[in-house]
Amino acid sequence: MKEKYVRDLRPDSQVRSTFLVQSKERKTANSGAAYLDLTLQDTSGAISAKLWDYSERTTPAFEADDIVQVDGYVENYRGAPQVRVRKITLCPPEEVSLLDYLPRTRRDPEEMYAALLERVRRMAEGPIRALLLSILENPALAEKYKLAPAAMSYHHAFLGGLLEHVSSLVALADRTADHYPWLRRDLLIAGLVLHDIGKIEELCFTRGFRYSTRGQLLGHITMALEIVQAQIRKIPGFPDELKSELEHIILSHHGKLEFGSPKEPLFAEALVVHYLDDLDSKLEAMRQQYALDQDRPGDWTGRNPALKRELLKPRQKG
Amino acid sequence: MKEKYVRDLRPDSQVRSTFLVQSKERKTANSGAAYLDLTLQDTSGAISAKLWDYSERTTPAFEADDIVQVDGYVENYRGAPQVRVRKITLCPPEEVSLLDYLPRTRRDPEEMYAALLERVRRMAEGPIRALLLSILENPALAEKYKLAPAAMSYHHAFLGGLLEHVSSLVALADRTADHYPWLRRDLLIAGLVLHDIGKIEELCFTRGFRYSTRGQLLGHITMALEIVQAQIRKIPGFPDELKSELEHIILSHHGKLEFGSPKEPLFAEALVVHYLDDLDSKLEAMRQQYALDQDRPGDWTGRNPALKRELLKPRQKG
Amino acid sequence: MKEKYVRDLRPDSQVRSTFLVQSKERKTANSGAAYLDLTLQDTSGAISAKLWDYSERTTPAFEADDIVQVDGYVENYRGAPQVRVRKITLCPPEEVSLLDYLPRTRRDPEEMYAALLERVRRMAEGPIRALLLSILENPALAEKYKLAPAAMSYHHAFLGGLLEHVSSLVALADRTADHYPWLRRDLLIAGLVLHDIGKIEELCFTRGFRYSTRGQLLGHITMALEIVQAQIRKIPGFPDELKSELEHIILSHHGKLEFGSPKEPLFAEALVVHYLDDLDSKLEAMRQQYALDQDRPGDWTGRNPALKRELLKPRQKG
Amino acid sequence: MKEKYVRDLRPDSQVRSTFLVQSKERKTANSGAAYLDLTLQDTSGAISAKLWDYSERTTPAFEADDIVQVDGYVENYRGAPQVRVRKITLCPPEEVSLLDYLPRTRRDPEEMYAALLERVRRMAEGPIRALLLSILENPALAEKYKLAPAAMSYHHAFLGGLLEHVSSLVALADRTADHYPWLRRDLLIAGLVLHDIGKIEELCFTRGFRYSTRGQLLGHITMALEIVQAQIRKIPGFPDELKSELEHIILSHHGKLEFGSPKEPLFAEALVVHYLDDLDSKLEAMRQQYALDQDRPGDWTGRNPALKRELLKPRQKG
Amino acid sequence: MKEKYVRDLRPDSQVRSTFLVQSKERKTANSGAAYLDLTLQDTSGAISAKLWDYSERTTPAFEADDIVQVDGYVENYRGAPQVRVRKITLCPPEEVSLLDYLPRTRRDPEEMYAALLERVRRMAEGPIRALLLSILENPALAEKYKLAPAAMSYHHAFLGGLLEHVSSLVALADRTADHYPWLRRDLLIAGLVLHDIGKIEELCFTRGFRYSTRGQLLGHITMALEIVQAQIRKIPGFPDELKSELEHIILSHHGKLEFGSPKEPLFAEALVVHYLDDLDSKLEAMRQQYALDQDRPGDWTGRNPALKRELLKPRQKG
Amino acid sequence: MKEKYVRDLRPDSQVRSTFLVQSKERKTANSGAAYLDLTLQDTSGAISAKLWDYSERTTPAFEADDIVQVDGYVENYRGAPQVRVRKITLCPPEEVSLLDYLPRTRRDPEEMYAALLERVRRMAEGPIRALLLSILENPALAEKYKLAPAAMSYHHAFLGGLLEHVSSLVALADRTADHYPWLRRDLLIAGLVLHDIGKIEELCFTRGFRYSTRGQLLGHITMALEIVQAQIRKIPGFPDELKSELEHIILSHHGKLEFGSPKEPLFAEALVVHYLDDLDSKLEAMRQQYALDQDRPGDWTGRNPALKRELLKPRQKG
Repeated sequence: MKEKYVRDLRPDSQVRSTFLVQSKERKTANSGAAYLDLTLQDTSGAISAKLWDYSERTTPAFEADDIVQVDGYVENYRGAPQVRVRKITLCPPEEVSLLDYLPRTRRDPEEMYAALLERVRRMAEGPIRALLLSILENPALAEKYKLAPAAMSYHHAFLGGLLEHVSSLVALADRTADHYPWLRRDLLIAGLVLHDIGKIEELCFTRGFRYSTRGQLLGHITMALEIVQAQIRKIPGFPDELKSELEHIILSHHGKLEFGSPKEPLFAEALVVHYLDDLDSKLEAMRQQYALDQDRPGDWTGRNPALKRELLKPRQKG
Repeated sequence: MKEKYVRDLRPDSQVRSTFLVQSKERKTANSGAAYLDLTLQDTSGAISAKLWDYSERTTPAFEADDIVQVDGYVENYRGAPQVRVRKITLCPPEEVSLLDYLPRTRRDPEEMYAALLERVRRMAEGPIRALLLSILENPALAEKYKLAPAAMSYHHAFLGGLLEHVSSLVALADRTADHYPWLRRDLLIAGLVLHDIGKIEELCFTRGFRYSTRGQLLGHITMALEIVQAQIRKIPGFPDELKSELEHIILSHHGKLEFGSPKEPLFAEALVVHYLDDLDSKLEAMRQQYALDQDRPGDWTGRNPALKRELLKPRQKG
Repeated sequence: MKEKYVRDLRPDSQVRSTFLVQSKERKTANSGAAYLDLTLQDTSGAISAKLWDYSERTTPAFEADDIVQVDGYVENYRGAPQVRVRKITLCPPEEVSLLDYLPRTRRDPEEMYAALLERVRRMAEGPIRALLLSILENPALAEKYKLAPAAMSYHHAFLGGLLEHVSSLVALADRTADHYPWLRRDLLIAGLVLHDIGKIEELCFTRGFRYSTRGQLLGHITMALEIVQAQIRKIPGFPDELKSELEHIILSHHGKLEFGSPKEPLFAEALVVHYLDDLDSKLEAMRQQYALDQDRPGDWTGRNPALKRELLKPRQKG
Repeated sequence: MKEKYVRDLRPDSQVRSTFLVQSKERKTANSGAAYLDLTLQDTSGAISAKLWDYSERTTPAFEADDIVQVDGYVENYRGAPQVRVRKITLCPPEEVSLLDYLPRTRRDPEEMYAALLERVRRMAEGPIRALLLSILENPALAEKYKLAPAAMSYHHAFLGGLLEHVSSLVALADRTADHYPWLRRDLLIAGLVLHDIGKIEELCFTRGFRYSTRGQLLGHITMALEIVQAQIRKIPGFPDELKSELEHIILSHHGKLEFGSPKEPLFAEALVVHYLDDLDSKLEAMRQQYALDQDRPGDWTGRNPALKRELLKPRQKG
Repeated sequence: MKEKYVRDLRPDSQVRSTFLVQSKERKTANSGAAYLDLTLQDTSGAISAKLWDYSERTTPAFEADDIVQVDGYVENYRGAPQVRVRKITLCPPEEVSLLDYLPRTRRDPEEMYAALLERVRRMAEGPIRALLLSILENPALAEKYKLAPAAMSYHHAFLGGLLEHVSSLVALADRTADHYPWLRRDLLIAGLVLHDIGKIEELCFTRGFRYSTRGQLLGHITMALEIVQAQIRKIPGFPDELKSELEHIILSHHGKLEFGSPKEPLFAEALVVHYLDDLDSKLEAMRQQYALDQDRPGDWTGRNPALKRELLKPRQKG
Repeated sequence: MKEKYVRDLRPDSQVRSTFLVQSKERKTANSGAAYLDLTLQDTSGAISAKLWDYSERTTPAFEADDIVQVDGYVENYRGAPQVRVRKITLCPPEEVSLLDYLPRTRRDPEEMYAALLERVRRMAEGPIRALLLSILENPALAEKYKLAPAAMSYHHAFLGGLLEHVSSLVALADRTADHYPWLRRDLLIAGLVLHDIGKIEELCFTRGFRYSTRGQLLGHITMALEIVQAQIRKIPGFPDELKSELEHIILSHHGKLEFGSPKEPLFAEALVVHYLDDLDSKLEAMRQQYALDQDRPGDWTGRNPALKRELLKPRQKG
């Protein structure tokens, strides 16, 4: 259990807590002495740190991406807090929870997951329900599904981001299917639950977020297909046509070839998955940018990297 | 009141009814005699017609786009019905209702319009509500708003299509704002009611659908701005910021420069207007294509011109 | 065994042979009598045919894509031969060989396949060789691999086209690997043998060539992955890294996102597969165009649809 | 009246003059003492300045974009002059003329404006002349028209730039209409006078050049339409067709959708406005680059941001 | 000397004149008899013609692109005149002037050429003048320069079109250089005289316009370089820098790589050549379209193939 | 003869050798004293150097791109070797060989050239062989051909790079022509030998690699044409058709207009030249990147600028 979070560190105070080492660089001071220039991070943010008079012999070994116990003092450096490290030791990984050290959803992943499962269980019996449950109730998949970010950056780029994104999409899909009752609701919901499942293997998120080598070679769309095909093989009598339709929804959800979908959406539910996914991602990116820049002077936010433009901040309340 | 509709004409029967002349061409038979090759249309469809032994002196004058009273006999020509015209006379325009002669919404425009007005009246007092009512309660604008198609082709290309499209969008926007409660609901709804209002002047729809000359020179986005600006001038104290935001929503609703929007959406409600408009248009285009091709053999519809692809017909019910 | 081929039909002679019905249309003559307008085809070409005085009651039933026994007389119609059908009856499909009725490779598929197998067997023992043999020696896959065309049109669009294309590519790869000895030759050859294997399910080729519904939804790249993954699951201890590399070669072989590859080639052998595939396809398209237009007057061929240009015919011999 | 210009400041001399504060940053010296790092600007250029031993209590308040009276000493810092500020006080805005502090046209705006007015007055009586005079003789519009830059950067990015650009265009249009006498000269000239008038509200130019919020939301094309439409409403009987044509010229003057024109030029004068505008802008950008780099060694200028290329410097005189 | 032009042929009259055979097709009448379906053309237009009861033995031999003497009768066929040919014989090519049989400039090529030469002779002595004269006074080049069309279609696609286009450009360039006096006028004029000179070999225009084989392989830009380089080699001491600049103007005059210019304009005169060429071509295409459609009902012309849009016809006179 | 290479310099040792001055900048130390900040280079790499207490009067004059004799001491600066210069003097250019100072092929240019010549001499007698020999045996051209790099960066960007690239291509072409025996082998080889010959004038490579002014204005494709045309003029009776084909191969070898080829390949050998050139360049760029990053941790290389992507490093040996 972490004792103190980066967000709460104030200059001129002692600090003793655990952190993730985001970066570690050995440098030489003007005096010629070696020191370590570190960035320490936890789920609340990141802070610069210095370990002066560094020597490989006396300082315990640790690397970037390790979790460490730090004992030090918070100073004010050029107007920002910075930790002067007195003592630093490696933490055993089994004692820590990732959610404490990486950016994470503000909501409870377990609760979101339970709600998602509950929604799927309310579906009519049939192959779609069977497939979704075989995936969501699979412990290995479930553990990753709860933690995975939805993207490396841009939107929902935090632990639990995939789940938060999908939860929003499923609720939005229910409203959309209420509005267009001729849509096949269960196919739509299945498409949304599965469309980004490849992210759980495309991305590495047990430390800083990174693409896995296989993720970089194949991409999450192809990886999602393999996961879903493996589950379908376990369900006797799963209809071939339905299988093709689900695979197509996954394949086409980026909407265009140049965005990495080798097929464009060829039926209504595939089109809706693409539009809702795109809309929810972009609105979340906007919401985050508004929050980030709410105290920034002027009418405009900074440039949003997902939308590649500055945004007009909301003025009057609608 | 029309007596008979194209859809109901059967070979080997008499016909006496009014029609819109879609096309009229003077041709010469192998015998050397002149005849008229006509296409007659009403809201239910179009049919080929021939007037043999044509002479300018004896046949009453009429042109394409006129409404005519036809007296004739329905024959079978190469497997399709065709009218052999005995007598044809011009109909006075004031006696006919356009809704009988052009493709039209299956719903009642008056009812849809009343529902839209009622929704707007439920808004909180304020400049947005005032603006929308000043437009929707303006008799000249209202009359056109009820009849305008939403497009020349592609989607909602029928009388009342604009209203049907907007009615769907406003209801969808209410669901979307329920889902994302931080959106400014009234701004969103105003954006949707106004985004395509330029269509009422961009398109001519009192006969076959055509672009007006001014519509072709300026486009419906620019024309919508002029209509909305004119109404805003009549509302004392309309906030400048709100005016800019509404204008921006209209301007940016095509989403990209290459689709004719000189600005991309720069705040959340503008983005949502673009996405919902695009989604509703494409789903309606898909729905129409499914309906058109439901009896076509095979898994696929014909090529849909709006989506530029064949569509997989819905198979199992969702 | 077919008795006579389209290529050999001459005006003013009897014909009695079997053909594939490419198209069949019921028409009405000026006299009002019904007749059938047919196109008959076999591997050597296609010919127009007429069955006059057609009646559903007396003429045996058959449809487009059926193989029929035809008894008739070859006439000259506007300078081209045309069959006047006297008698037409359905042929039982089990009695015919597809190779007689569809455009096909000029080479012997069995021989090409044997040579390909022999080349693979010469590889060093290991997972690549094991995978290729498990596929090429699988009777169900082998049967399709021997017959599949390499494309719907453009290049190698004939029975055995896939195999002819792959055989050329494997030989070209051996030469290329001789030239660049640092390339991993077996990975390259495996990539070429597998890159288009999805075509055996993307295309239907037991009658006229068509996309299968699943083929249109997923595309041959995605289908190739599923076939290869299924075979790899049967090989214990197949290395994960090698699996990812083979999958990547298949995925990236179109070279660019806009050509349907969700990933661009990320290592040398993937790049070479893309280039050789592209070069061999385009050279074959050119070679076919040269052959087609060798007697055409002037310096240029007609427009080649694969290359989207006219070609300069080869003049002096190099 | 400014006493001294940046261009004339020499190291090792006293300076006492007024400047616009381009940027102001509070920094901390190695000694721990606070100081201000400033950039001071006037119409002749910009210079770095330092105010050492800064304290909020004793230094008079001022911000970036203010005009200040500076008392100091010019030093040589790393080969460039830099002001060591002794005393700095805010100047009342009503006492200064913008033309002294911002980059500006080398020509006299009043003279250019008078010439433009005179040219318009020479037109034949009629609605075009009436419209142009109603705009050019409107004092509020005239004041802005004389000062506005033609762009944020790229070309004519200085006070009076719009007027200089339009003056050049009108003279060029007269020559072009002499060459192509079938062009409607007055329509062409009106199009050029009005095409960029939206810049007077799209840009803020009373301090450093910036986009206004409304400018960023709507763009100068849409803003020009509103200005022109407002003037046309005041002219009784202004022909509808002419109004549409002028609006179209404004709308289409960027030539292509992807450059922000929702319509491409649809008649000859609109096409000519687009070409002349583009040519004059690019030639001015080239001329400025040649002037800037005339002493640069080698055959090439630096990269020109408007043309996105290096330019060959003019060698022999033509 | 031609006796009668297509434009003057009236139904129910004899015709005896020479024409160019635009197309010739052997057809079979319903009766089984062979006849020739011809299109005859001269500079004023084209007309359909029939030679009934055709026999290879009795009718004199001629081919498409030959010039023939025709003796016949003009009939009315479906409302249009058509020649019933009685007698047709080949004309010796040396007896005819191309200008009579192909679309041609309305102006006198000799006069235009003389004016162009005169303009060049007015240049200051120097290498530019020397080069232009060496080309324009070269009889072989001059003969082609006077006749070449400026394009296959789109603009100035008639005999003398290149010369008409260049004459317009040179006059326009003089006006432009008056306006921008810092431009190197002679370089500009030389660039315009030479930019399209490759057309004289890219196109074949001694009969119907066609690309030459070499023209299709290399394009007129590359061919212009070869012509110009050959002339420069004959001028001792021609400056290297000037040579490069002229070559660059020719190379870059299409403005962008995707329009076939391997380099974009890199100095002012090259830019101006590109803009003037583009403007003059498009204005001429517009002018031709206006002329063609001046009696067409409605506000719009038909679709212009060069500009790929319909044009608004000029309404009020400017 | 160079005494010592950059690659062999070790901290804490004396150095006395010749180097090329890559860059030279006069700076001021904190103490106010002037010093020179230099980068010295030879074929093995580059190293930073400092000349302290610099004075224009006492230090011998030299500039960037000069070759200098340096006498100094190698220090360790921030973990990297750096030369403290004691004495520096200019070297006479005639005493040095470029191959010692610029990055160069690892192979012997003379040997490669001899092999290329020998291959050409083995061709059948005829105009192709005559042309190639006239070029390759021309001493002025040969000297440049042996030294020219194949590109400014990206691939073969070193002395001898063009020759190494062409040598590889010619050998690859022989293998390709063995595989596709219907290709005109000599035309293919001639195309490859000549396709990039313009590089010998487009690039300056007697010091750091740079574009020549003429190279930047015209590009190597246009320059290659001029070189080849000049040689062809010297060969009596060189066939026109063959000339056009060779010119076309050169012109089209970039494959697409947007890559600077004004024509796309229009016959088979031109297509093969484009593909082989592209493949060999990209494979060489990959090979270099693999070599550069072989000791870099992880599965991926750094971003390759030619391919614009990271590359997967080869893992198992193929």
